[in-house]
Amino acid sequence: MIDKEGFDDWYNEIVEKAELCDKRYPIKGMNVWKPYGWKIMQNIDELIRREMKKTGHDEVYFPLLIPEGFFKKEEEHIKGFSEEVYWVTHAGKNELEERLLLRPTSETALYSIFSLWIRSHADLPLKTFQIVNTFRYETKMTKAFIRVREIHFFEAHTCHVDFDDAERQIKEDLEIANSFFSTLCLPFIASRRPDWDKFAGAYYSIGLDVLMPSLKALQVGSIHQYKENFSKPFEIKYEGVDGKHYYCHQTTYGMSERVLGAIIGVHGDERGIKLPSSIAPIQVVIVPIIFKEHEEKIMEECKKVKEEIEALGISCVLDDRDKTPGSKFYDWEIKGVPLRVEIGPKDIEKNVITLVARDGIKKQIDRAEIEKIGEELKEYDKRLYDNAKKFLEENIFIIKKLERKDGILEAPWCGDEKCGKEMEEKLEMKSLGIPLEERECNENCIICGRKGSKWLRLAKSY
Amino acid sequence: MIDKEGFDDWYNEIVEKAELCDKRYPIKGMNVWKPYGWKIMQNIDELIRREMKKTGHDEVYFPLLIPEGFFKKEEEHIKGFSEEVYWVTHAGKNELEERLLLRPTSETALYSIFSLWIRSHADLPLKTFQIVNTFRYETKMTKAFIRVREIHFFEAHTCHVDFDDAERQIKEDLEIANSFFSTLCLPFIASRRPDWDKFAGAYYSIGLDVLMPSLKALQVGSIHQYKENFSKPFEIKYEGVDGKHYYCHQTTYGMSERVLGAIIGVHGDERGIKLPSSIAPIQVVIVPIIFKEHEEKIMEECKKVKEEIEALGISCVLDDRDKTPGSKFYDWEIKGVPLRVEIGPKDIEKNVITLVARDGIKKQIDRAEIEKIGEELKEYDKRLYDNAKKFLEENIFIIKKLERKDGILEAPWCGDEKCGKEMEEKLEMKSLGIPLEERECNENCIICGRKGSKWLRLAKSY
Repeated sequence: MIDKEGFDDWYNEIVEKAELCDKRYPIKGMNVWKPYGWKIMQNIDELIRREMKKTGHDEVYFPLLIPEGFFKKEEEHIKGFSEEVYWVTHAGKNELEERLLLRPTSETALYSIFSLWIRSHADLPLKTFQIVNTFRYETKMTKAFIRVREIHFFEAHTCHVDFDDAERQIKEDLEIANSFFSTLCLPFIASRRPDWDKFAGAYYSIGLDVLMPSLKALQVGSIHQYKENFSKPFEIKYEGVDGKHYYCHQTTYGMSERVLGAIIGVHGDERGIKLPSSIAPIQVVIVPIIFKEHEEKIMEECKKVKEEIEALGISCVLDDRDKTPGSKFYDWEIKGVPLRVEIGPKDIEKNVITLVARDGIKKQIDRAEIEKIGEELKEYDKRLYDNAKKFLEENIFIIKKLERKDGILEAPWCGDEKCGKEMEEKLEMKSLGIPLEERECNENCIICGRKGSKWLRLAKSY
Repeated sequence: MIDKEGFDDWYNEIVEKAELCDKRYPIKGMNVWKPYGWKIMQNIDELIRREMKKTGHDEVYFPLLIPEGFFKKEEEHIKGFSEEVYWVTHAGKNELEERLLLRPTSETALYSIFSLWIRSHADLPLKTFQIVNTFRYETKMTKAFIRVREIHFFEAHTCHVDFDDAERQIKEDLEIANSFFSTLCLPFIASRRPDWDKFAGAYYSIGLDVLMPSLKALQVGSIHQYKENFSKPFEIKYEGVDGKHYYCHQTTYGMSERVLGAIIGVHGDERGIKLPSSIAPIQVVIVPIIFKEHEEKIMEECKKVKEEIEALGISCVLDDRDKTPGSKFYDWEIKGVPLRVEIGPKDIEKNVITLVARDGIKKQIDRAEIEKIGEELKEYDKRLYDNAKKFLEENIFIIKKLERKDGILEAPWCGDEKCGKEMEEKLEMKSLGIPLEERECNENCIICGRKGSKWLRLAKSY
């Protein structure tokens, strides 16, 4: 893992060195996705789609542009986003009658149509999602994948008969998050955000955060209970079994390209990024270790091994460029390819192949047991996860007085906004919220000293 | 096939009845993609990606927004698009220093970055593509998938050392088109557009058109030779083997959601749409033909058949809704599912299953030969293609004098713009251009009577 001090510089450099993106596009916060980075993002999207399919969510695509009138229907929502939206005011040489905004998130685009789709209780639950780009005019410093103005975004939107069914959805969302992030070897913590930091228009919000090597938290997902906050202004009603009409209860679950930012940050080292095998565009690279006299024989063996690996459903590249093995190692390590296969004269002689995982673990396996490569990838993934988990756990601290410390702090808190905000100010941190897994707290609030407190998580954050 | 007169009404209705899109979104020409329609479009995108992968194109993603300054670099291009672009002028409460436009196509976004990516002849050819939405403020009447203002778009962009290599690319593009459209059972014609109708900024343009049942042509793809028209203003230069610097030659190949419009139109009938099996989200639907006393046995058999069909890699749904078989047939025919499997007491008794293809062809196969379903799907696809091909060929007419006729006309033309435009006016048609496959023409121009003419294709068009 990269050390705390050097992390931000390392990150800003590696996203370009690994050919994930090009930051030279002349609009701040809008970067170009290069083929390698875009392929990784598409693989992440496919993992999300798999989770959505398993849980019965349908994929939709709603227009990018939202009429100003729609956007203004939910008051808190517009307050939360009005500083951040891009406005389309003209088309060709005409000024538009009504201004249109680029979706910063899609509630107001979807919900007017949901009110047409939902008629009766038989239409519920409605479970949909879309994977689209959203646009937010960020005023803070931008950072590739982590704080950008055109955001590759996933958003699930659901409608339910009542609050309880919406709560059930939120439980399902947490299971989805567990499954999804573990496939990416990313341990996270889930916290119920304090009221002053919930999503604009939500009844409550849950944040999913990972801890970056900079010891700053990065929100990689959020789940919101809307109750009837949107269904009332958008008139999303259904006829119940009793023939009466009710407002739907709604939830959303959002993630973004920040997931890629987290993978880069959490797993990377001074040699480059490390990709979990589930999303690596190239899972295995074969590097021939060639000495002139054996060249033909070795290349032949490499090609055979490549075919056998591909037959296992594992993506594989044979690097036959005219470069030294060492400089090939260097290139593929930057790009985080999970496993390198080295084949030289000695390997052929001994009837083995040499495997070097991206985290440095080296091993020889019998040439005849090539199917073990699948197992090696799994073990590599497990090591990525375990290391990240260890790092996260070692950097969560319980504090019982106002004490500055790097990492994620958990402090006893009476629940009052005033005390919470004072903690934020004095610790120079932001509240992540109350741990989702309930834990008793018998301590007194570290600000006002009152009894009956809960744990409040705080951290510096992106 | 739908008859000419009723076609447009049928089309406007079927796109909603088949649950492809919802046209009630309140911005003209911006529709909602419903799950079924979006899945079909994603399947079409996957076919394109397959072709791109085969031919060594890399997928990228460039930002949606383009600074006005970039857009203005190529004069013809801005002339062609200036009436059609959406302008972002404000962000939050601020007026932007430089206006940004929503890409109507991405040349001007990509090419400034290409000039950074390309340094030497070793970087060429550069073959990239992206699948994105583009935005055009259409003033003509909008029509789902065919004329919309937010367009789901595919665009390949390539850079080459010289004109000849760019020409080789265009040949490859035509091969890609052949492979791609035949998978969709869509015969098309390729024509070199007349100069007055080429793409804004192109040296020449090739249009790929299908013929719709309305006897109007629909452009479903276009291929452009740019020569150095963009590389000069955007300074896309490379160092040749001789150490000197040269401008790249460029090409593009574009397609859009119109491909879906063509599939709906060309294959559909009064019962609904007909999907080629390559893109059908559901390839086979099983409908149990139930009489009360056999219910359990039949449902059991249906489930077994479903499993066996899915084991063949064919997507399959068992329709166990509480409705009559007839009303199930009706629902799935609207949605164009290629093959229906009927299983009733008689089928079980005779140890067969009954297959009904969406085009009405009915057949019984032995229960033990279920793997024949793959073959049946191929034959169904072939019938779709053959029917469409027959329709296209029967509606191309050679005319030797000014004579109005429905369909695609081919008329002798001297090559002068004035004569071409007069033909367009008198026939109330648009020129599609000169057939790509060269054919001798010994007739005289039907306008000026001069010798030495070529064939000019004309048609009414969308």
